[in-house]
Amino acid sequence: MAAKEKTLEDLFLETLKDMYSAEKQTLRGLQKMSKAANSEELKEAFETHAQETEGQIERLEQVFERLDKPARAKTCHAIKGLIEEANEVAKEFKKTEALDAGLISAAQAVEHYEISRYGTMKAWASELGMRDVAKLLDQTLQEEKKTDQLLNQLAESRVNQQAA
Amino acid sequence: MAAKEKTLEDLFLETLKDMYSAEKQTLRGLQKMSKAANSEELKEAFETHAQETEGQIERLEQVFERLDKPARAKTCHAIKGLIEEANEVAKEFKKTEALDAGLISAAQAVEHYEISRYGTMKAWASELGMRDVAKLLDQTLQEEKKTDQLLNQLAESRVNQQAA
Repeated sequence: MAAKEKTLEDLFLETLKDMYSAEKQTLRGLQKMSKAANSEELKEAFETHAQETEGQIERLEQVFERLDKPARAKTCHAIKGLIEEANEVAKEFKKTEALDAGLISAAQAVEHYEISRYGTMKAWASELGMRDVAKLLDQTLQEEKKTDQLLNQLAESRVNQQAA
Repeated sequence: MAAKEKTLEDLFLETLKDMYSAEKQTLRGLQKMSKAANSEELKEAFETHAQETEGQIERLEQVFERLDKPARAKTCHAIKGLIEEANEVAKEFKKTEALDAGLISAAQAVEHYEISRYGTMKAWASELGMRDVAKLLDQTLQEEKKTDQLLNQLAESRVNQQAA
């Protein structure tokens, strides 16, 4: 008997495992970035999004449950690379005026990765007829977009402060 | 004498080197993904964006020149991880109906990374008073956004084809 052909459902599950790893890495990354940041505002933004990320991890666990699969992470190398870059910036630009700009940029790259993946997974969930899953993923997607906007605002206010 | 404190200009240069690596990796990745894709339309989209990417690499070289620095890449680990994920999908979903969905998703994650980074770099270039550099980066940013939209359309037409 030939091996069963892989389907969109398999692809969805693979990506779910990738995101489960991505969010867990993001949680640890945000906690580190919060400690590293110069400004109180940015520290708080990272801390708030870390808490939000805990809820996003739980949502992914609900999706695993809905698929009747054990919640298992598969190392997301993209986020691993992104977090490495954030740690490098934190180290190389420690105590400099450019530090927060670098941390914001790194965090936005993480958000963009997640926005892209959640957008895709939401579309796939709809295609696979899993409306409740699509809804869960959309909740997270909206949170990620809001965080990206907040980081944009913080980047702009940083520029305005330096100009003042 | 204390070491000179790192500035936003240093951060800009670091990110430029990262993107120079990112685009070079993307070029090779797109060429592979074009070969791997099932549909002619997707093959063509990847091929077209590979050609565009060559122009984007040249633009980055112009930015190095403008900064009076040698064009040097610094391995971008985020893109490395993203391209690895694309290669995995190409291998695991070879000859399946889900293949193109997986390749589109991987390519969109790459585009989102680049959109995020070019957006940041454009803002920094303006902040540093380099208007011509900001303009060059904006040209690439607009191309990346267009590619992401095209990939969205291809993802949707894939769904419509399967529903038909």
